[in-house]
Order: sequence, then C-alpha cells, then structure tokens
Amino acid sequence: MELTLMLLAPVGSILALVFAGYLASSVRKTSEGTPNMVEIAEAVRIGARAYLKRQYSGVAIFFAVVFVIMLVLVYLGYMVIYVPFAFITGGVFSGLAGFIGMTMATFSGARTANAAKGSLNGGLRVAFSAGAVMGLVVVGLGLLDLSFWYYFLNWVYRAEPDFVRISAVTSTMLNFGMGASSMALFARVGGGIFTKAADVGADLVGKVEAGIPEDDPRNPAVIADNVGDNVGDVAGMGADLYESYVGSIVATAALAPTAGLGIQGVGAPMIMAAIGVFASIIGTFFVRAEEKASQAVLLAALRKGVWAASAIIAIATYPLLLTLLGSRALGVFIAVLAGLIGGNMIGSATEWFTSDEYSWTKNLAKAAGTGAGPVIIRGMAVGFMSCAPIAVIVCAIILIAFYASGGMTDYNLGLYGVGFAAVGMLSTLGITLATDAYGPIADNAGGIAEMTHQPPEVRERTDALDSLGNTTAATGKGFAIGSAALTAITLIAAYRDQIAGLAAQRGVAIDLSLSLLDPRVLVGIIIGAVLPFVFSAYTMQAVAASAQMIVVEVRRQFREIKGLMEGTAKPDYARCVDICTAQAQKEMVAPTLIAVAAPVVTGLILGVQGVSGLLMGATATGFMLAIMMSNAGGSWDNAKKYIEAGNEGGKGSEAHKAAVIGDTVGDPFKDTSGPSLNILIKLISMVSVVFASFVLMNHLL
Amino acid sequence: MELTLMLLAPVGSILALVFAGYLASSVRKTSEGTPNMVEIAEAVRIGARAYLKRQYSGVAIFFAVVFVIMLVLVYLGYMVIYVPFAFITGGVFSGLAGFIGMTMATFSGARTANAAKGSLNGGLRVAFSAGAVMGLVVVGLGLLDLSFWYYFLNWVYRAEPDFVRISAVTSTMLNFGMGASSMALFARVGGGIFTKAADVGADLVGKVEAGIPEDDPRNPAVIADNVGDNVGDVAGMGADLYESYVGSIVATAALAPTAGLGIQGVGAPMIMAAIGVFASIIGTFFVRAEEKASQAVLLAALRKGVWAASAIIAIATYPLLLTLLGSRALGVFIAVLAGLIGGNMIGSATEWFTSDEYSWTKNLAKAAGTGAGPVIIRGMAVGFMSCAPIAVIVCAIILIAFYASGGMTDYNLGLYGVGFAAVGMLSTLGITLATDAYGPIADNAGGIAEMTHQPPEVRERTDALDSLGNTTAATGKGFAIGSAALTAITLIAAYRDQIAGLAAQRGVAIDLSLSLLDPRVLVGIIIGAVLPFVFSAYTMQAVAASAQMIVVEVRRQFREIKGLMEGTAKPDYARCVDICTAQAQKEMVAPTLIAVAAPVVTGLILGVQGVSGLLMGATATGFMLAIMMSNAGGSWDNAKKYIEAGNEGGKGSEAHKAAVIGDTVGDPFKDTSGPSLNILIKLISMVSVVFASFVLMNHLL
Repeated sequence: MELTLMLLAPVGSILALVFAGYLASSVRKTSEGTPNMVEIAEAVRIGARAYLKRQYSGVAIFFAVVFVIMLVLVYLGYMVIYVPFAFITGGVFSGLAGFIGMTMATFSGARTANAAKGSLNGGLRVAFSAGAVMGLVVVGLGLLDLSFWYYFLNWVYRAEPDFVRISAVTSTMLNFGMGASSMALFARVGGGIFTKAADVGADLVGKVEAGIPEDDPRNPAVIADNVGDNVGDVAGMGADLYESYVGSIVATAALAPTAGLGIQGVGAPMIMAAIGVFASIIGTFFVRAEEKASQAVLLAALRKGVWAASAIIAIATYPLLLTLLGSRALGVFIAVLAGLIGGNMIGSATEWFTSDEYSWTKNLAKAAGTGAGPVIIRGMAVGFMSCAPIAVIVCAIILIAFYASGGMTDYNLGLYGVGFAAVGMLSTLGITLATDAYGPIADNAGGIAEMTHQPPEVRERTDALDSLGNTTAATGKGFAIGSAALTAITLIAAYRDQIAGLAAQRGVAIDLSLSLLDPRVLVGIIIGAVLPFVFSAYTMQAVAASAQMIVVEVRRQFREIKGLMEGTAKPDYARCVDICTAQAQKEMVAPTLIAVAAPVVTGLILGVQGVSGLLMGATATGFMLAIMMSNAGGSWDNAKKYIEAGNEGGKGSEAHKAAVIGDTVGDPFKDTSGPSLNILIKLISMVSVVFASFVLMNHLL
Repeated sequence: MELTLMLLAPVGSILALVFAGYLASSVRKTSEGTPNMVEIAEAVRIGARAYLKRQYSGVAIFFAVVFVIMLVLVYLGYMVIYVPFAFITGGVFSGLAGFIGMTMATFSGARTANAAKGSLNGGLRVAFSAGAVMGLVVVGLGLLDLSFWYYFLNWVYRAEPDFVRISAVTSTMLNFGMGASSMALFARVGGGIFTKAADVGADLVGKVEAGIPEDDPRNPAVIADNVGDNVGDVAGMGADLYESYVGSIVATAALAPTAGLGIQGVGAPMIMAAIGVFASIIGTFFVRAEEKASQAVLLAALRKGVWAASAIIAIATYPLLLTLLGSRALGVFIAVLAGLIGGNMIGSATEWFTSDEYSWTKNLAKAAGTGAGPVIIRGMAVGFMSCAPIAVIVCAIILIAFYASGGMTDYNLGLYGVGFAAVGMLSTLGITLATDAYGPIADNAGGIAEMTHQPPEVRERTDALDSLGNTTAATGKGFAIGSAALTAITLIAAYRDQIAGLAAQRGVAIDLSLSLLDPRVLVGIIIGAVLPFVFSAYTMQAVAASAQMIVVEVRRQFREIKGLMEGTAKPDYARCVDICTAQAQKEMVAPTLIAVAAPVVTGLILGVQGVSGLLMGATATGFMLAIMMSNAGGSWDNAKKYIEAGNEGGKGSEAHKAAVIGDTVGDPFKDTSGPSLNILIKLISMVSVVFASFVLMNHLL
C-alpha cells in the first residue's frame, strides 16, 4: 500500500514539470511587442544570465570545497558515501529551480507589458502563467530529487533490518538539505544585494536628486534595477522556496523513526506533497477572469485558485493519512490543518501591517509629514510590533500540532506533528508561489512599459498587477516565514535524533536533556541569537556599500555624458550591471561562510549541547528579525506608494521625500536581509546535521 | 566571622550616604552664576520636579494595585507576608535613588556652567562631584535596603533550621527585586519618552526646519529638552542602576542555598558590594587634575579613579572570599575578575563601534554624503555588528565563571559563580556611575551656557566635558548591558531553584529538566523572544507620536508668537514641558503592563516550563536588541558630531542633514528603548519569581 502511494511522488513531480513545460511554451507563443520592447527585454535577459552564470561559478567553488571536505569526512568514517552526492544534487536542483524560474520571468516581462496593452486580464494571464511555471518547477524538481533518493537509498539498504534502513534513508536525505539551503542562501544574498544596490542607487540619484521618475530610461541604473528584480526577487525566491519545500519534508521524514512510524511515516510527507502538486495544478484552472475585470475581481480570482487547492488538499489528506498512519492519522491531520490555516493567518497579519488599507501604514504615511526621522522610527515600530501576532500564531500552530498528534505522552510523535504542520503549510506551494512570483514579473513589465514609452494605461495596468502582487506576496511571505520557523524547530529535533543515533552507534555516553541551564546550551543560545544580527549587519552593509558605488557611478554619468538628461544620449547601462554583479559576488561570501562556520566552530568548542542551543537561539532571533524586516520594509514601501497615489501631499511633497528615504531603508530589510534569515536558520541546522558525527567525537567542553 | 564581615554592608551603606551628603553640600556651596542662569536652572528644576511628582503619583497606583494583589496571594497562601513589603521598599528606594540623583543634577547644571567660566577643570569638579553623589546614593541605598531585609529576615526566621532559614531569607529578598525593577522600568521608559520626544521634536523643527542651533532659547522645546536630560538620563539612569545593583546581588544570594554554601554564600555578594563602596570612595580621590589640563588628561584622571577602585577590589576580594567560602574561594574569585575585566572589555568594544576615532563611525559619517537612506542602513549595520563581540565577551565570562567556580561536576556552584561575575562587574558602580552621570550634567550645563549667551569658551568647555562624558558613558553602558545579561541568566537559575523548593514544599511532582525540545519551553522561548520587540515597538511608537506633537506645537509657536524668531518675544516653554509630561505618563503604561503580564499569562497557560523558556527567549533577544540600539544610536550621534566638527562637509551640508536624521532615529534607540530592555529582561524574571507559587499550582498545559 505504502509503496503504491509512494509512487504518487514521482508521478506528481513529472506531472508538475510537464505542465510547467506546457505553460512555458504557451507563454513563449505570445508576442514580446515592439522592437523597442524586445531590445530592452533582451538587455535585461543578458544581464540576468550573465549574473547567474557568474554566481554559479562562484558557488561551484564553494560546493567543490565542501564536497572535498565531505569526502575527507567519509574517509575518516564520519559520514556515509552518499551524503556528498546528496549535497550536490540538492544544490544543483535548487539552483536549477531558480534558473528556470528566472529565465521564464525574463521571457515574460515584455510579453506581460505587451498583453497589458490589450487588457488587464491579458497581462494577468501571461504573468500568472509565468509565475505558475516557477511554482511548478520548484515543487516538481523538489519531489523529483526526493523521490530519486528515497528509492535509491531504500534499494541500497534493502538488506538491512527495517529500523536501520529507515534511519539510514532519512539521515542521508536530511543531508541533502544542506545543498539546497546553501544554494538558496547564495541566491538570496547575492541576488538580494544586486537588486537592492541597483534599486536604492537608482532611487537615491534618480528620484531624490535628479527628480526623474522611477524606471526612467535616462537613469543609468535602470537596466540593473530590472535585472535585479529577476535575479533577486525571482531566482532568489525560487531557490529559497525550493529549500523551504524540501527542507520541511526531509526534516519531518527524519523524525519518523523515533516517532515509531516506520517507512509509512517517512513517505507520508512526500505523498502529502504530491497531493499538493495535483491540487495546485487543478487550482491554476480556477484562476480566470472576465476580459474587463476590476482589480478586486482579479484578486478574488487568484485567491479562488489558492483556496480551491487548499480545499482539495484538506479533503484528500485525511484518507491518505488514515491509510498510512492508522490511528495516529487524526492528530497529524489536525496538525496539517493548523499549518494550512495558520499560514493563511500569518499572511493576513502581514497584510494588516503592510497594506495601505489599514491604519499601520496609513499612520506611517501621516508621520512622513514631520520628516524622515519619524518615518524611520515608526516604520521600525511597525516591524517590531508585527512580530507579536505572527509569533503567537506560530506558537499556536506548534502547540496544536504537538498536543493533537502526540502530546507529552507520545512526545516524538508530537514533534513529528509539528514538522507535518510545516509540510501542510507548504503543500499549496505550487500555486501560492505562482501568485507570488508573478509580482516581480509585473514589476518588470511596468519598467519595460515606462522605458519604451507605452501609453499611460499600460503602465497603469502593470501597476495594478504589481500592487495585486504586493497583496499576494504578503501571503506568500507569511508561508515562507511561518514554515521556516516550524522547519527550524523540526530540524533541532531531527538533530537530536541524529546525535542520539550516532552516540548509540559509537557507544558514546551523552547527556541529551538539552537543559536551558546547561551553560553549554545557554552560551550556545546566546551565540545563536547573535548570528542573525551579524548576518544582517553584513548584508545591510553590503547593500549600502554597493548602493553608494551605484550612486557615485550614476552621478558620474549624469555629469559626464552630455545630453543624457535631455534624452539625446544613452547612458552606459552595462557599467551599473557590472558593478552590481561584482559587488554581489564579493559581498555574499562573508555572510554565507559565517552561516556554515558558526555551527562547526561552536560544536568544536561547546559540543552538541552548544550546537543545539545555537540552533534554538538563531531560530528565535532569526524568526523575529525576519518578520520585523519584511514587514517594516513592506510598510515603508506601501506608505510611499500611498503618498504617491496623492495622499498626505502626494508626489514631490516633503512627506514624499521622507517616505522615499523610508523605502530606501526598507529595501534591503525586506528583499535582502529579511528573506535570507529564513534560509540562514535552516542552513545552520543542516550544517549541524552534516557535521554531527564529527562534532560528537571532537569537542572541547 | 561571617556576622562581623556582614556588618560591612550597613557600614558601607552609611558611609556612602554620608560621603554623598558631604559632596552634595560642597557642590551646593558653589555659585549658580548670573541671575539669568539661576532663572533658567530654576525653570528646569521646576519642570523636572513636576514631572517626577506626576510620574510617582502614577507609579504609586501601580504599586498599590500590585500590593493588593500580593496581599490576596498572601491570603491564599501563595506568598509570605514580607514579600509585599519587600516589594514596596524596593520600589521606594529605587525611586529615591533616581530622585536624589536628579535633584542633585538640577542643582549642578548652572553651577557647572558657572565653574566652567573659570576653567575646564573647575567644571569637571562640580559635574563629577554631582555625578558621584548619584553613584554613592545608588549603592548606599541599595546596601541599606539589602542589609535591612537581611538582618530583619534572619531575625524573623531565627528559630528555623539553617537551610530553611537561608532559603526563606533569600527568596523573600529576591522578591524585593520586583519593586526595584518595576520602578526602574517606569523611570527609564517614562523619562526616556519625555527626553527623546523633547529632543527629537526640538531638533526636527529647530535644527532642520528653522535652521537655528541646538539649545537656542528661541526654540520653545528647549527647556523641555533640558528637563528631559534630567528626568531621563539622570533620574532614569539612577533607578535603572539601582535595580541592576540590587538585582545582581539578590539573584546571586538566592543561588547560595542550592550551591551548598550556607549563609556565608548569601552574605558574600553583599560584603563584596560593600568592599566596592569603600573602593569607590577611595577612587574618587584619584580624580583630580591640574587647573589647565587637556581633555586627554581629564579622561586619564577619570579613568585613574575607576582603575584605582578596581585594583582595590581585586586585591581585597580574594582574602574576603577565602574567609567566607574556603576552598571554593579561588573559583569565585576568578569569576569576579572575569566580570570586572569583561565589563571593561565590553566598554572598549562599545567605544570601538561608537567613537568617531574608529572606522565604524567614520564610515558612517562618510555614508552621509550619499543621503539619509545609506546613513540609516549603515547605522543599523553598525548596531547589528556590535552585538557580536559583546555577545562573545559575555559568553566567555559565563564559561569562565562557570567552569572556574563549579563546572559540570558542581553545577549549582558554577551558576553561583556566573551570578558573582555580575556582582564583580557592578562592584565599582559607586565610581563608574559617577563618571557616567556627570555627562548629562555637563550636557545641561552646555544648554544653560547657550541659553544665557555665555562667552563661546564656556560652551566649548562644557562641550569638551560632554564629549568626555560620551566616552565614559560607553564604558558605563558596557557594564549595564553585560551585567543585565549575566543577572538575567542568574535569575533563571534562581527561578528554577524557587520552583524546585516550592514543589517540594507542596508535594508537586514536576519536570524541571527544562529541555529546549519540550514544546512548553520552546513556545516559551518564542514568546519570550518576541517581548523585547513588542516592548521596543511601544516605546519607539511613543517617542515618535510624542515628538510629532512637539513638532506641531513648536511650529505653531513659531507661526503664532510674533517676534519669536527675532528674539523680541519669549516662547511658551511650559506648554512643551506639559506635552512631554502628559505623553510620557500615558505612553509608559502599556509597555510596563506587558512586561508584568507576559510571565503571568504565559505561566497560566504553559506552566513553569513555559516561563523558564520565556525568560531565556527574552534574555537572548533583549540583550541583542539592547546592544544593537545603544550602539547604533551612539554611532549616529557621534557621526553627526564628527560632521559638525567640520568633517565630510561640516555643519549645514547635505551630509549633515542626513546625519541629523540618523541621530533623530538613534535618539529613541539609545535613550529610550535600548536601556529599558536591560530592565525589562530582569523585571520579567522578578515577576516570574513573585508569581512562582501561584503559577506552579494553576496552569493549563
């Protein structure tokens, strides 16, 4: 029975990829518009490709070095031989998900703008289809990689007794998460630095100093800005969510053995994910609207798709779990529902804090009238405050999932339930990512419309799509942040299980009570708590430094290129793209190395207790900072847009200037540091798992 | 032997108070200067008194309510009858420390300005003596209250067997911390909101819009700003450090019983504190300089005082500990040294990040050339980054103190050592607080000099004193932050001991392993981690809202009062003072109630395990946010001063405007939210201790 159901995973994977291919070809068939539009789209495409090529070469060095270190650990007996390869496939597939998504996006920007000439709905269809390609590629590749290793490892260990085989399969698959997570971190950090350096740099000189509009073709940083949308918001997001998706699944699967669930428990999250793929594909058919639909109708159309998928999942999951888990099905099902509903609630909370329809952002816009200082202070306060409801929702999910599925009497099953809540939350990823990824595509379309001087209604339509994307992106962020916290906690439990298994295997006596008041745990918590701060310091510093370089370059071009402001001469776009690319590559190294080194160094000094504390501390502060930065950034962004829509003095007023400064600060918050933190807290867990055996045998205290 | 040594505590206390009285009367004997100066000093004094009076009336309601709740708990058998009274004395003495310090400061501002007419050294002497009054009053009152309860409770429980008596004494004294901490929180938050609302409001209109200098008498918010320096930076700081001082001592004493140390272990931190008082008094005699000393010589003079006190403590502590603790003396002595040295190292790290002599702040000033956005982003990065070395130093102190005094084999003694490190760090408080508190006095003196149109060299001298104060304040902040983290951790251990004792007493079986992976602990950690964020949201929001009201009022006065800008008409100073007072009172309620309610509500749902997690989570994020905010704020402040000194374009340049915005953001960071967080993390521990018995018997999960 389990084997038959497990086939759903590879089948779902292939179906997702085939459907993605179909959508991609249908988008490619639409026209890219005027020669002017084709030319700009091509420039963006070239810049984005060049960037990714350079990024992947840099990342390849990192993967090669880690691969060699892993081989040494294999040789020394700290690791099985499959781990290094699982690590590589995780990285390659994560990168591939980002690459395909980005390629699709660069092919869709101009097409969306061109379709928006006809109607709002036309634009929506192209952008949404392109977003759906990314969503389906992410889940398709994720399930493909998971299925491959699941079948392969079960075959390799086929002669072992059940429990040994299952543990071997899950612990090897867990290692594969490190590949996905490190690739995702590189993509988010590198892409995030690129896009925000370009964006902030372009705005600081263009909007603030020269007084020209956003996306004005006279601004030398404008192509870099558009490339950035693709490499940061699209490729980065793809790799990021690939990581979240497989991370939640492997972490939950890894808890199955100690939860006493056997191979059914290992397969269950993958099968549930496969159900999610089918549901997402069906959901995409619900996204359709009349030719002349209003924005509210379009939003309802998008939401209908997500809700249809959620409903299908909710209905299909219970019989599935009943087959796999028998009497434990109900508890785990409640955990899934908690995850699904909780994810949506986090999305609503995010919207409440960041949308200009609610008082937080309205008051922020009002504060702009008294200057940039109050805007920054209040925006920070919005971000800080938004942590409260989201943390409470996540805590409620944890408690419901834990007590419903196991409780203190069946403790390990309870933790498995917490993991499953994350899987449930991400099960609709195929379609939620589609509604999320189409935002940057619409943004790009707007840029292209502006640069090619399309009639104003085209820009209005792409702006409407973009603003629609902001709303759905808030929900998407809710899922990403919530699932990251749940997965990080699941990974701490998985880490403890790994250590317990390894210690038993090697005959090492070890205290795994992990008491708060064990000084190794406690110091680990403090060190863990500081990591997200240091990480954010590096990424923000990097954006500021790179943006300053762009500012200097743009000022230079305005000064030196005669006729630029008059529109008679063309700026040197490529120079800005080059600066961003070089800066992103240079600056992404330090934060990533810290993430990888911290758990190993902490482990060598404080042992596995210290590492456990580190993971908890990093999860606690990383989770809060991620929420704070995302929502403060979102609120600043929307407060600015709200003023630009004619409120509080409108464009060009003192309030607008103050709001632009707020938005500038918010940019690295919400698109560089914030989202990277979600990956960071999982990456350090993954690194800890990979080096578990080594740290167990070699530590100071 | 122990009883004789214990006499040092009341003796030290009285000596400190007497010496403070002597210093106060000698300051009072100096002249307050011209009638003009007397008048302004009087206005500031009246405003500050009125504020404190109103604050204490508000706080009295809080104390009355909590007192009644405590009496109910006493009646229900959850608390001994002495606790409510200990709570009240803690609050009264903490408030008194702030009040005396502030009164002294309001009497010294004009006197410092007047003395600075003669020489820099003359100004230093008055300001430093006034600061020393505050330092000595804080330690004197602290030791007085501690001694009183120590002797009284020992007498009350004289018939009980040793262990019971000691536990009863320490647990009642621990409760007294809640009074001190809640008073301190009110003082810091209320005073912090007042001072920064006035400061930000005055700067936003005065400096940025009207282009008049700081402390210009035409600015209607200028008296409020000066009042703020006294009620926030002086009275708030006094109550705050009173709380830190007694908090570290009672927390350490509370660990003595389970560490197997008996009454000697309880007395040891008090006796060590008494030694610190003698050393501090001696240290003040080292602070003297030539009449025409340079600033560097003055700094050296101040430092000589602190170092002399430190050396005396280091030398006197070992024989003392040997007498009290026998064979365990060496380990605890190492813990004390770790605290003393570590505190200084944190101070140096703080200086490295915030002083304009080092690259962090210099680069921040340079970033100002590209606009306010980069200034904010980079300043945040400086704050984030500064967490790293400080966290590492605190972790090193914890590990050294723990492993030197007990280690995993004598675990409870190890934790006692961690507590003692905090006591060691704060043992020089009598003199470090003097060097710290004189800063705001010098700042006020500068304001008075400006407003009364003194010759420029007077302002130059007070500015030199103020900038000297910035450097010593960095060290002072290091001690406050470091000791807060250590004390908070000690309090978690004390809380667990309390619970264990209560559970045994009531025959309740309870799991106190406090594992990270216990969902109650884990959810507690997340809820705890979010508290400092919510708290900061409230305080920052409060400053922004109040500053906006000041902006509106100042703009109104500039508009409506004819002849104001020409200096022919006087502004309505009192109106701004009133607004700040009312706002501070209104806005300080919510954050304080959250701090008090959070541990009780969490406890009622998640039990004592949840509370333990809460304390750890709040300590981890509160510690980081406090460092981040203090240092980002310090760096922005000094970057602005660095530009005003003529660098990067100097006063009036675009860079200067951007730096002023940075400073505006930094104001609530460093003087409202940041320092309050140090108190917050201890207050929630104290509240948890007070309600321990109630929560133990009444909880959901």
